[in-house]
Formats: sequence, C-alpha cells, structure tokens
Amino acid sequence: MVYIYDTTLRDGAQTKGVSFSLEDKLRITQALDELGVHYIEGGWPGSNPKDLAYFEAVKGLRLGNSKVVAFSSTRRKGLKVEEDPNIQQLVKTEVPAVTVFGKSWDLHATQALGISLEENLQLIYDTISYLKRYFEEVFFDAEHFFDGYKSNPEYAVKTLKVAEEAGADCLVLCDTNGGTLWFETEEIFDAVLKEVKAPLGIHAHNDADMAVVNSLIAVRKGAVQVQGTINGLGERTGNANLCSIIPNLVLKMGVESIPKENLKKLYKVSRLVSELSNRPHPANLPFVGENAFAHKAGVHVSAVEKNPKLYEHMEPELVGNRRKITVSELSGRSNIVNKAREFGVELEKGSPEVKKVLERVKELEAQGYHFEGAEGTLELLFKESVGKAKKYFELKGFRVLTEKRSDNDEAYAEATIKVEIPEEVAREKGLEERVEHTAAEGRGPVEALDKALRKALEKFYPELKSVKLTDYKVRILNEAAGTKALPRVLIESTDGESKWGTVGVSPNIIEASWLALADAFKYKLMKEEEKKRR
Amino acid sequence: MVYIYDTTLRDGAQTKGVSFSLEDKLRITQALDELGVHYIEGGWPGSNPKDLAYFEAVKGLRLGNSKVVAFSSTRRKGLKVEEDPNIQQLVKTEVPAVTVFGKSWDLHATQALGISLEENLQLIYDTISYLKRYFEEVFFDAEHFFDGYKSNPEYAVKTLKVAEEAGADCLVLCDTNGGTLWFETEEIFDAVLKEVKAPLGIHAHNDADMAVVNSLIAVRKGAVQVQGTINGLGERTGNANLCSIIPNLVLKMGVESIPKENLKKLYKVSRLVSELSNRPHPANLPFVGENAFAHKAGVHVSAVEKNPKLYEHMEPELVGNRRKITVSELSGRSNIVNKAREFGVELEKGSPEVKKVLERVKELEAQGYHFEGAEGTLELLFKESVGKAKKYFELKGFRVLTEKRSDNDEAYAEATIKVEIPEEVAREKGLEERVEHTAAEGRGPVEALDKALRKALEKFYPELKSVKLTDYKVRILNEAAGTKALPRVLIESTDGESKWGTVGVSPNIIEASWLALADAFKYKLMKEEEKKRR
Repeated sequence: MVYIYDTTLRDGAQTKGVSFSLEDKLRITQALDELGVHYIEGGWPGSNPKDLAYFEAVKGLRLGNSKVVAFSSTRRKGLKVEEDPNIQQLVKTEVPAVTVFGKSWDLHATQALGISLEENLQLIYDTISYLKRYFEEVFFDAEHFFDGYKSNPEYAVKTLKVAEEAGADCLVLCDTNGGTLWFETEEIFDAVLKEVKAPLGIHAHNDADMAVVNSLIAVRKGAVQVQGTINGLGERTGNANLCSIIPNLVLKMGVESIPKENLKKLYKVSRLVSELSNRPHPANLPFVGENAFAHKAGVHVSAVEKNPKLYEHMEPELVGNRRKITVSELSGRSNIVNKAREFGVELEKGSPEVKKVLERVKELEAQGYHFEGAEGTLELLFKESVGKAKKYFELKGFRVLTEKRSDNDEAYAEATIKVEIPEEVAREKGLEERVEHTAAEGRGPVEALDKALRKALEKFYPELKSVKLTDYKVRILNEAAGTKALPRVLIESTDGESKWGTVGVSPNIIEASWLALADAFKYKLMKEEEKKRR
Repeated sequence: MVYIYDTTLRDGAQTKGVSFSLEDKLRITQALDELGVHYIEGGWPGSNPKDLAYFEAVKGLRLGNSKVVAFSSTRRKGLKVEEDPNIQQLVKTEVPAVTVFGKSWDLHATQALGISLEENLQLIYDTISYLKRYFEEVFFDAEHFFDGYKSNPEYAVKTLKVAEEAGADCLVLCDTNGGTLWFETEEIFDAVLKEVKAPLGIHAHNDADMAVVNSLIAVRKGAVQVQGTINGLGERTGNANLCSIIPNLVLKMGVESIPKENLKKLYKVSRLVSELSNRPHPANLPFVGENAFAHKAGVHVSAVEKNPKLYEHMEPELVGNRRKITVSELSGRSNIVNKAREFGVELEKGSPEVKKVLERVKELEAQGYHFEGAEGTLELLFKESVGKAKKYFELKGFRVLTEKRSDNDEAYAEATIKVEIPEEVAREKGLEERVEHTAAEGRGPVEALDKALRKALEKFYPELKSVKLTDYKVRILNEAAGTKALPRVLIESTDGESKWGTVGVSPNIIEASWLALADAFKYKLMKEEEKKRR
C-alpha cells in the first residue's frame, strides 16, 4: 500500500504568485478527500496565523478518506520542546498526524542553523519523541537528505536513525534542492534500506526534471509514502506532480494506493487547483492537460476510434480527461459528423448539411480561423449552417475612437454602437423599440467596444448580464506581413456555470475582437433557447 | 559523444496553436546553431510547401555547428522509391542528413497502413538504401518502437535490423505514444543492444512525464543521439525537453556533447522559442524558467551568496539563467554593466547611471515589459538614461477611428497624428515648421497609425523611408483579466541592412503598438546619428 501525501496547501502554496484564501484551502481539501489522497498537509500552524486558521476551520469538514497533517520545524535550538510555542501550536491543532522536518545535511546544521551536529540530532529526537505522545502518526521529513547523504552519508543516516528511535512512523527522504538524478535515488535508497527499518517516504522537487521518476523509483524500492502537489505546484520548478505520479502508480504500475475508480476525479481536481491558484491550466500537462489526448490533424478519427490503443498510451476517461480530435479538412466528413454529435446535432455523413458545414469550416480556416479553444464559434457555425440557431441581433454600425494626446497622456477609447433585434424577437418580448444606439468608454478600444455591446444587448436580453469575459488572447497569424498582419482574437467567456470559447479573425484587430465578442453573446443566447426547448 | 538532435521546427511545430513563420524558423535555426546542437530537423519537405520553403531558405544561412536534417516517411506502399514524389522532395533539399520514420509496431503496419509485415520491412529497406546514395547520413526513426516491442519484440527488432542492413547511420527508438516507463526503457534498450550493432538514438514523448529520464537512460545505455525540442514543445504533452536534457547530460552527468561553455546560451534560446511560438515562458521550467533559481523570501541573500551550493543544485549562470532573490539589486548591476557594454556604452558598476538604468528596467518590467526580441527598445532605454540619445520627436496627439457599418461591411480605420521635432533639430535641418499634422487610413487601426506616423516623420527625417516593419506580434500578458488584459506588442523592423526589435506595453492595444512603432523609428534615428559621429 502506497500512501499519497499531498502538500499542495503547504509546499505548493509557496509558489511565487500563488495565494490561497481559507475558502480555497477548504475547497481543495474537500476535492483531495474525494480523490482519496491519504494525507493532506494543510500548513505550518506555527509559522503564521492564516495557516493556524486553516486547522481550526478544517475541523468542521467531514472527510471520508484523508487525514489532515500539520507541518513544523524541529524545536528551536536552546528551547525545551515543551516551551517552544511553534511546537505547542502543533499540539493544539488536534490533527491525526504531524510532520516534522529536520536537517540531514551536516553543512546545513552547522552553517545555516549554526548548531553542532550533535545538537541537531537532539533537536530531531526531542521533537519527535515529544510529539509521539500527542499524535498517532509522526512523520520525519529528512531535509536535504540526498545532498546530505552525498556530503556525509553516516551523518545523514544518523539523522534517520535518531528519528526512528524517537518513534517516527515514516522517514521521508527529501530532495530539497531538487538536483538528484534517478540513478542516485536508486543507490541512496538501496543504502538507506540497509540501515533503517522504519517505513520510508519520498519528497522530491523538480529542479532537474526528475521529481516524478524519483518518486516512482522510491516506491519501487519500497517507499510507502509519496509526497507531492497537484499540478506540481511549488516554489522554483515545483514539487513532484501527483497528477503524473498517481496515474503512473495505480494505472500503469498496478501499485495499491488510491482506488482506481477515484482517479476519474483527477482531471477536475487538477483544474480546480489551477483555477484557485489563478494560473492558466497548462494544456500540455501529462494525463490532465487539455491537450494530453489531443490528436493531430493527420490522424483519422475513424482510425483512433477503431483501435485507440494504437494512438493513446491509456484511456483518457480513466483520469477524467477526454480525447480530442481537431476539426480538419483532411479527415473531413467523419470529423464533422462526430463534432455535430458532440453538439447534439445528428447529421448524415453524405448529406448536403455536412457538405455545407465542411465548406464553411474550410472557408474560415483558409481565412485564418482555428477552432481550438473556440468551440463556441464552431458550435454556432454548425447550428447556423443547419438552421438550428437564430439571428439574435444585427450590427448596424460601431465606431471606436482611440486617442492619445501626448507622450505623457494615457490613451483612452470610446465606442459607439448600434444594434437591431429581429422582428420576431421584438414581438416575443413585447418590445416596440428594435434598435439600441449607445456608447461606452474604456482604457482600450476592445474594452470600450465590449462595454458598449453589452450595454446595447442587455437592453433586449437581460440574461446576458451573467456573461463575463475571462480570457482574451491575440495571435497574429502571418506576423511577417508587418502591420498588414492577420490578428486572430480568442475569447473565453463564462456565465458562472459553463465556459465557452469564441474566435474572430480579421486584418483589423478591433473587428477581430468584435467577431469574437458577438459570438460569445450569440452562443449564450443559443444555449438559453435550447434550455427552454427541453 | 552524444549528439543532440533538435526537432523543434518539425515535431515541435506540431504543437496545437503554434505556427512558425519562415522567418521564425530561420531565427530559431541560427539560435540552435549558436547553442551548438548537432542536428536541426527543419521539417518534412514532402508534406507541405511551407516546409519545402524552409529548406530552400536555410541554404542561405552560414551554420557553424549544426547540420540541417530533412524528415520523411518511408516510400508509399505500391510506389517505387524513385517514383515517390515525397522522397524526391527530400533529395532536392541537398541537406547533409535525412531522417526516415517507419512502423516498428506490427499492428500499425497491418491496421493503420494496411500492409503486410513483410511489405513494411521492404518499405524501410528500400527507402533507406535509396537515400544512402544521396545523403551522407540517413537516420531511421523506429516509430512506436517501445509499444511495438511489447507487442511483438521479434518484429520490432526486425525493423531495426532491416534499417541497419540498408545502411542507416543511427536507429532511433521512438516512444511515439509516450507511455513507456523508465524501467521499461532500460529493459528494452538492453534487449536491443544484443540484437543490433548500429548506433542507437532515442526520441521520447512526455505522456507519462517520463521523456527526460527515458532520454537520459538511453544515453546511459549507450545511445548516441537524443532527439527532443526546446521547452519540450510538441503535440499532446510534448517531446523530450532538451532544456532539461542538455544541462543534465553535460553538467551533471559529465557526458561529452554540446561544449559546456555553450550552455550559457540555453536560457536565451529557450526564451526565443517561447516568444516565437507565442506562448508564455513557463516560469517553473527546470533550468531555464524564470523561477528555476528564484529563492523564496525566507532565504537570506547573504546565506545563499556565501554558500550557494547549500541552496542551489547548480549555478544558474551555467545555463544563462540567473539567481533571483526577492529583495536584491545585487545581481542587477552586473547585468546592466554587461548589457551597456554590448551597446557600446561603458558604465561604472557603482555609478548613479547604472542605478538609473536598473530602476527604469525594473519599472518597465513591473509594468509587463520583457526585452527578449526587443533589444532596440532596451538600447534606447540605456542610451536615453545616460544622455546618449536625443528626443527625436514628440507626440502632440493621435486619434485612431475604427468603423464597421454593418455585419456585411468590412471594418476600416483612419488615423490622424501630430508630431513635433525639437528646436535644435529644426535648426540643424534649416526647417521653419516644427510640427506635422497629417492623416492616413488602413484596413486596421495599427496599419493606419503606422502609415500616419511614417508620413509625419518622413517630412523631417527622409532617412526613415527605408524602414519597414517586418514582424508584428501581440501577446496578452495577464490573459485571465479579460478585456482588462495587458497587451504587449513586439515589432521587428529593418532598413534593408540591419534588423531590430522594439516593444510596447499598455492596456490599450493601439497605444502599445504606438510605443513599439515610435521606438522603431527612434532606434533608426539613433543609429544614423551614431554613424555620423564616427
């Protein structure tokens, strides 16, 4: 049995630019519990009041799978452990388990802490033996273990032995600087196994791009605890990525750990943590990235579906992810039919509708449209082509003025817009006025245009108030054409429940933004209508 | 000797959303050559005209270290190799080496290609033996080798043997689906080494987060060629990341490959590729990420500098990266002095000028400026800060109007601009009128503004007629902020002799473009003046 020990909330929270609120931490705790991780290291209560608050709040959660763990340093030099306020904070948390880190590298003890090697051993012994009185499980994180072993193997092992004597339930070898290579991990684990009997664990960092393999190697050597974070969050290059470790362990290596069924939750947990750490979810993350199972254009849909094992190293659904096949002209009709089905539209492979949609897709692609990340525009395209989407509004003109008065003045922008709704929509809503002509301003032209369009449309469609723009990307498609370049604007919108992407391409960047914005609103209106029809 | 084989331009270019222009590819080729990679796989000439164009254009580059390689499939079933146009395209490239990929997995041959196992062997043999007549080096990429070996080891090895017989100079085992675990790589390499004598290579993908270690394990087993991409670019989860492999190989494992000195260029190559693939440079990339050596706040500057080995697994400078400690100017000043020297300006390390430049750089970086690819703006910044560049013109206002009259009308734009030249410049040129107020139009607002600015400036500075904008890129810096996002515009200009990059950052995309455009012209004027002074 290999225990998964998550430190997203403690070591992961040390990532530059990441700041979890208490609410965030509780949400992540619940998600991790549902996933089934065995230990959740919630923070270092003695280090700051925010961490302390977590341990108070988490008592209110009913967790089915995970044990909450509190983290701490060894007692301060010169202080008795009973008198160390940091250690006392730990005791107050009343969690089922605690983890204490101590120096295993002689130089760190003498130079960084400024204590003798003997004293360091005493700190470790005192702290762990004391905590064993209060906690069912006490883990020892042997900080800088691998570098320490390379520098002074006897001493490094001594720190483990002392922790073992004190009653530590697991000795976790930490690659704190992250520079240990895989074969060194093998050698060092082999050596340590000869010296101690207590269960071993691993805590790797990714500075040499080795954290995942180092963790799996430790397991193969008999380690029973693997520490890591979701998405490999963590300072510098991050901690060992549990989103890679867990599927490899359970699905590929057949190791008993988190139940296989639970892994379907992995993708969602991964996305949640990206969301709450306010970082884009890297599309190329193994297992849980958007593109992890996205096949390139040349691969035929039919080929993959007939025998997925030929193209995929595992089934995406096992980790909650899904296969993606690009809509490309090369594989044409099968793609269109499959895509239409994803949108809830049944089309016949040889039908004129499919031909129409395919031609429209090709036409747009030739103009520079790509539909990755713009499923909203694609769905509108499909449904408009087969008469399943209305014309919700018509543009009667917009004008966007950007002005900058001098080198020292900031530029600003003003947009005016006129839109008209169709007769039947006005009739449905009992409205007399079909046209709205309004204006808005903003720091930039796209902001001004978005505000103006929103103002105009919300007059007719108040349901659009919930729509927010969460992501705005621009790519210049033929950059070498200078200012005659072709901008492609990709927008992501949300209504609080779902998210959708829309795209616009035009040599005029404002027009490209307009197209993506208009589609974002049309998409929402189309979805609202579909809801009503059900 | 281990040869580094870069496929950023071929396999890496297949990444979703990445599209390299010809200009981009040539820039990357030059950067890779300076880094010292041994082979640069530039594309698949038979697959599309863009790839073909690269091989024509690259003949014009003078490369000191790298050999350009063309990529191709084996001949098409049913066609004689001499009659296969794809293979003939290959021959026309006149590169020093070619790589041919063929199926090593029996099921792929029979199900995906629809040919017999014998026929598949024939395709491999024919293609390689034919190409050996035209090329000094012919490499065989054994596609899906590891899965193929697991499925039918004898057949997989047979494909290698046949390639060896045909004269292949290296047999590259490809983990095409990316699911091979490290110990499987060890076992399979051991088995293959018993069966073939030709040199071996490795081409790994990162689907199981194993690509880097699989590549290094291959080297330990005696592989002489490692294929990968910069930043691990590539479809799905990416190819093996050369930015992790190279430092591990050369600096940690002491393997003879790219000279140690050259590794200092790694960081810049990595940033260039991110820039040109229009993707954010992941801060947590091992070795080359912004945060790879960013120490958390708790670590004291003095402690790290006294004994960096206690905190860092290696020296950042070895790969061209730098240590970051949150509050510290210390690493700032040396950088400034070195950069100034590059621009032909000698500065004293402790001087107020250096402090001024450093502050300006930090200020701009805090606003979102990065200077990679924008050395023009950086040089202007340096020289303006130390009084070595004039104020060539002042903006007295611009207004850019974008109008779109209906859904069916194309948008267009008109810009008016007023600029003023300084008194002394007017005097020098014997001009009475210091102000030019003019207008221009274009399909888009940036085109209109560029034309208007050009018109205005050429009145005073006819030398600017030779300046052309060759590249226009936009990156949105904090995409998750929606339309309140922060655009960064990167422009490349040329006067027919040199090229220079300039950058502008502003929440207003027109203003960001203005800043980059204005710098582009100022840079040219500064250079003209420096020429006169010599």
